[in-house]
Amino acid sequence: MNALGRHLLLELLDCDSDAINNLEAVKGALVEAAKRAHATIVDVVFHEFNPFGVSGVVVIAESHLSIHTWPEYRYAAVDIFSCGDILKPEVAASYLVQQFGAERASVVEMQRGMFLNATAPVANKTLVPIA
Amino acid sequence: MNALGRHLLLELLDCDSDAINNLEAVKGALVEAAKRAHATIVDVVFHEFNPFGVSGVVVIAESHLSIHTWPEYRYAAVDIFSCGDILKPEVAASYLVQQFGAERASVVEMQRGMFLNATAPVANKTLVPIA
Repeated sequence: MNALGRHLLLELLDCDSDAINNLEAVKGALVEAAKRAHATIVDVVFHEFNPFGVSGVVVIAESHLSIHTWPEYRYAAVDIFSCGDILKPEVAASYLVQQFGAERASVVEMQRGMFLNATAPVANKTLVPIA
Repeated sequence: MNALGRHLLLELLDCDSDAINNLEAVKGALVEAAKRAHATIVDVVFHEFNPFGVSGVVVIAESHLSIHTWPEYRYAAVDIFSCGDILKPEVAASYLVQQFGAERASVVEMQRGMFLNATAPVANKTLVPIA
């Protein structure tokens, strides 16, 4: 029984507040995490909030990475949703724990889209160019 | 013990294949779901894949909605990540089940960022305009 997607839900605790409150630092870390996991980056969207906090998504051909940070709690919620056999989500997860100086972290892995007796999924979809 | 974020993980099964294979239809449904849930939309990013499938994210001030569709399996994975008291993620979830004609659906709710003895979080953060 295979799942179409692997979804890691990371709770990053006791992070470096400055690292998770800086838009460029957070964006850079997520993009680098995607690259290290061998993801194909499709789109990158990040925003900063008042009085603090960053939200962002790296859309990848294999699904997405997202982050929401609460520097006032030294906390960040990261999701790494991937499909296919090439991407290594655990590589991205380890890198982000390190980059944000998370002294504690937890990971829950959910299998998304599990089917009995399903034919093999299309392994590598390609992007349709925007007209 | 309060969580900073509520995260609904939806598995939408036996969907209308056409509805989840059309970029504009999927995008329109997610944006409308965000509006109905009283979210503040910040950014909208959708992409279509060959031979089929749509991925997209609606970034909202209260976190994000994301979707990945596998029309060949009549399956869509939706995440609704929200913070604050205003947003009603279950409204968005119900709307999407209906729009995609999902004959079956499951929802798992995860609490993200739970802290003991934490002070009340900043309820409504505002977006920092991009320079």
